[in-house]
Amino acid sequence: MRLCEKKYKTMNIKEKIVRLSQIKSKLYQKDFLLTWEKSEDDLKAILEIADLLKQLRDKNISPRVFDSGLAVSIFRDNSTRTRFSYASAANLLGLAVQDMDETKSQIAHGETVRETANMISFLADFIGIRDDMYLGEGNKYMREVADALDEGFEKKVLPSRPGIVNLQCDMDHPTQSMADLLHLKNTYGSLEALKGKKIVMSWAYSPSYGKPLSVPQGIIALMTRFGMNVELAHPEGYGLIPEIEELAKNNAKASGGSFKVSHSMEEAVKDADIVYPKSWAPYHIMQQRTELLKNTDSQGLKALELEALKNNFKFKNWEYTEEKKQLTKNADALYMHCLPADISGVSCNEGEVEAKVFEKYRIKTYHEAGYKPYIIAAMMFANKFEKPAEVLRSIFDKGLKRVSF
Amino acid sequence: MRLCEKKYKTMNIKEKIVRLSQIKSKLYQKDFLLTWEKSEDDLKAILEIADLLKQLRDKNISPRVFDSGLAVSIFRDNSTRTRFSYASAANLLGLAVQDMDETKSQIAHGETVRETANMISFLADFIGIRDDMYLGEGNKYMREVADALDEGFEKKVLPSRPGIVNLQCDMDHPTQSMADLLHLKNTYGSLEALKGKKIVMSWAYSPSYGKPLSVPQGIIALMTRFGMNVELAHPEGYGLIPEIEELAKNNAKASGGSFKVSHSMEEAVKDADIVYPKSWAPYHIMQQRTELLKNTDSQGLKALELEALKNNFKFKNWEYTEEKKQLTKNADALYMHCLPADISGVSCNEGEVEAKVFEKYRIKTYHEAGYKPYIIAAMMFANKFEKPAEVLRSIFDKGLKRVSF
Amino acid sequence: MRLCEKKYKTMNIKEKIVRLSQIKSKLYQKDFLLTWEKSEDDLKAILEIADLLKQLRDKNISPRVFDSGLAVSIFRDNSTRTRFSYASAANLLGLAVQDMDETKSQIAHGETVRETANMISFLADFIGIRDDMYLGEGNKYMREVADALDEGFEKKVLPSRPGIVNLQCDMDHPTQSMADLLHLKNTYGSLEALKGKKIVMSWAYSPSYGKPLSVPQGIIALMTRFGMNVELAHPEGYGLIPEIEELAKNNAKASGGSFKVSHSMEEAVKDADIVYPKSWAPYHIMQQRTELLKNTDSQGLKALELEALKNNFKFKNWEYTEEKKQLTKNADALYMHCLPADISGVSCNEGEVEAKVFEKYRIKTYHEAGYKPYIIAAMMFANKFEKPAEVLRSIFDKGLKRVSF
Repeated sequence: MRLCEKKYKTMNIKEKIVRLSQIKSKLYQKDFLLTWEKSEDDLKAILEIADLLKQLRDKNISPRVFDSGLAVSIFRDNSTRTRFSYASAANLLGLAVQDMDETKSQIAHGETVRETANMISFLADFIGIRDDMYLGEGNKYMREVADALDEGFEKKVLPSRPGIVNLQCDMDHPTQSMADLLHLKNTYGSLEALKGKKIVMSWAYSPSYGKPLSVPQGIIALMTRFGMNVELAHPEGYGLIPEIEELAKNNAKASGGSFKVSHSMEEAVKDADIVYPKSWAPYHIMQQRTELLKNTDSQGLKALELEALKNNFKFKNWEYTEEKKQLTKNADALYMHCLPADISGVSCNEGEVEAKVFEKYRIKTYHEAGYKPYIIAAMMFANKFEKPAEVLRSIFDKGLKRVSF
Repeated sequence: MRLCEKKYKTMNIKEKIVRLSQIKSKLYQKDFLLTWEKSEDDLKAILEIADLLKQLRDKNISPRVFDSGLAVSIFRDNSTRTRFSYASAANLLGLAVQDMDETKSQIAHGETVRETANMISFLADFIGIRDDMYLGEGNKYMREVADALDEGFEKKVLPSRPGIVNLQCDMDHPTQSMADLLHLKNTYGSLEALKGKKIVMSWAYSPSYGKPLSVPQGIIALMTRFGMNVELAHPEGYGLIPEIEELAKNNAKASGGSFKVSHSMEEAVKDADIVYPKSWAPYHIMQQRTELLKNTDSQGLKALELEALKNNFKFKNWEYTEEKKQLTKNADALYMHCLPADISGVSCNEGEVEAKVFEKYRIKTYHEAGYKPYIIAAMMFANKFEKPAEVLRSIFDKGLKRVSF
Repeated sequence: MRLCEKKYKTMNIKEKIVRLSQIKSKLYQKDFLLTWEKSEDDLKAILEIADLLKQLRDKNISPRVFDSGLAVSIFRDNSTRTRFSYASAANLLGLAVQDMDETKSQIAHGETVRETANMISFLADFIGIRDDMYLGEGNKYMREVADALDEGFEKKVLPSRPGIVNLQCDMDHPTQSMADLLHLKNTYGSLEALKGKKIVMSWAYSPSYGKPLSVPQGIIALMTRFGMNVELAHPEGYGLIPEIEELAKNNAKASGGSFKVSHSMEEAVKDADIVYPKSWAPYHIMQQRTELLKNTDSQGLKALELEALKNNFKFKNWEYTEEKKQLTKNADALYMHCLPADISGVSCNEGEVEAKVFEKYRIKTYHEAGYKPYIIAAMMFANKFEKPAEVLRSIFDKGLKRVSF
């Protein structure tokens, strides 16, 4: 813990609410689909609200602003962590989670999406969506839902326009990257303190295949907004969606940071302040996979998986080891992961990270994950209230206990 | 929107509560299983309460009357719309939904039903049941549950007698037909205004098979209560449960309306005010299907499906088209559907309704569907409170905000 | 109903709260994993709190102490009764249930458990766990979760330490046995009145196989704490975990009761006050089964099942019949069961109990089951509040209505 963090920690809740009230965010009644559609002020406001909600709850003050209402969840891929984060956020604010089960594996589009979006929303305040299986599909699907809700609200089908929270798509994983950013902010004391820090988003070896691109894409697109020196390291051929790499480059230029792509984990981690070693499938493989999945070509899928795993196998040395850690700043770069990590000798034979290294930072990765429920709650809060600072002040003044002691 | 509707809309909430207090309904502590077991006053009370609950929520007033309590749901068939409607209703009043999963496909009866009904009800206020797969079984099952709850309450096993809400059975689909009726009432301004209006419940072609009879049965049994001229149109051999057709006839006689069965969609829709084109399986096919399902005769089921689809195929011209719409009153009969509809060229190649016609009334079908959560909430409300008008007045006076702004 | 019960029943809520405040329990912030880890005062406090919560709710007073919070459930085996009891308890106190689905059949241990336990607990107040499939595993798993939560709380990952409630493991089924004890207490009027009463926990024939040992183990370990004469009757070779039989023996010695194992249902039930006839798999079979399950040896499992069923078949005469009932105290021993029972001629051809006998005590078994939600709520309550009597007094004085009439 550094000095600046201490100062922030001692800042009291009322002071933080004042600071929040000075941020000019435009989150009211807006979906949260991609961090790069949001201004720096928007992102700062989310971080501040998340922090305040966490502190209120820690002080046993209930920020329950809904007396009733549904938070719908649509998980088109398995999830434990994000599911619990979403449920926790909804519950904290007073909403009940209602799952929308899509047992059918086909990608519903068009009329079905338009109709269903309205049918589940008559008394809903939010819809959280995870759809990360198909490149070019997940975010598009969210926008189809959004358009349907716009129409439903405009035509008075819906009494209010439910907000959409992107719980991971093919392009971004904003609840993860924002939780990661809050973790960094609290670790270093402020967003200011992140300027000039070197963060390495590195591909790492994993015995499994087809991991989505949204985490590395979310990280390079977000961290370049705050003047960090972001390095994306991966073996040749393991690139991300080119447009998002381009975006990261432009972000860095604008924020006074830098963005660089390189092809050696060893080189990349040198003098790094932060290292985020995580596996993903190459962009071109994901493209092929999407086509095969669309055509339900199970043989093609098997062949592609074999090929991809064989290719991964060549890069087993992309493991974040103690030896590599020694090359980082003070041999102690902050290790980050969205969890679960593939830990060599623990969750797999050979994986993303050496057990000893993971263990050293394990509790810190738990703290990192612990911000996600509050980030989601903050996204909901900022969507629902035009002046979130005022609502938070009123919650604080009222001081309703979460648990009646 | 007609004049009378405008008048109703301008009537304020307090006036509506007074009007409700004058209706002599007997819904207190009664299950809602079939609309034809309820008096006209009962049905009117449900409509008024539903409307009031909707208005209160639209004004950000929370009608949460339960501080805790469970609303159990038993879905013996898939459902999205009704599931969300039930969850929304329960949540609006303050209850948590608890699903009872019956993964076993057999029809549980007797001892198991008697015991389970009690085991899930110790702290339950309502049980919502969908059971529409087997002719002669669904409604019977609900009554078995009801008897078990009666015994449990009488023998002090249960602190209160949970109310049962029929979420669709083999005979009726009261939450749907009552939502449809509220839609008509609000479209035409009053129940009075429905007198003499011609509504056509018409079979329509669908490429799928085995759709339940409960919607058309519910519609003919309910709409004949209010002086409407109800015409049931279907190809020869596609009749409904004969007793329910008989019931509709008697209802019409008593209410000053009419009930007629005919066999041409084209003829039927002439001068119709309202058209409800929807597919269903013929009664005699459903009877055979029930026998085969009971005997788990999968080969027999396949054969029956083929036969039924082949038969349906002969009636492809039972599609509600622009051409047929031109025959209706002012070429603009109100189109109704419980959704999802089989829309030709959209959700299937050839189906119940032409895309252009559906699109014209699409948003109106969304409004129609939007009443269901409030109808269910009204059924719960009327079951729980002897004097619902008084409770609503107290809710209105208190004015607790649903969302704290 | 006996005299002493009447006296207890007329004791008012305030007097009972005073009585509770005099019990020196140490349940605050402690998991409830095994009854034999708890003092007699702990157990008494749970019974009193459960009774008080039930009475408050029966008087339409809401004991909602949480304004928000999650009660996580982990069911590694199917459950309807306990699932609903847990949901009811959580809801009564103001918590939302969030299910943790473990679709994978393998036994997760080590790192995965440690991490997941924290990931689901950021805003959780309780975790209820059922894990009764594997001898030597269920309770061990709960302790792994407990250790992980301890670490998470200590390292400030978790804002509070969620309490764990054992919803059935390989060793004990404390929410069942405590509900059974409360049933006995209320039937006979007091715990004092149980002294010297003879209770027979008897194996009974069932056509199914692999029923867990936790119920009989829980019963013999708990009822021996209160001076009862406990007899465990089973065919040779159907013993329980030896350490738990040993424990029961020691408990009986300490409490002034007795513990005896015998091998004839007929002999055992003679002069019994209470009879609990229930099937279970022999300890040594469960041990073999665990090994086979671990090795996913499906052929071995089938062979074992056949052998076990064949063996059961030899003991069909272990049915609790009217004839055997005639041998009990006044031919009217209280019949108990955790439900569902295998009732001869009703739920199976030949089973644990004759239909006529079951029917006579059926409603009493419903009452027995009805205590479970309150026992679970009491376990949560006692874990969360250092001085439960004070919190209950404040709830009673406030008198917030559960349903607003």
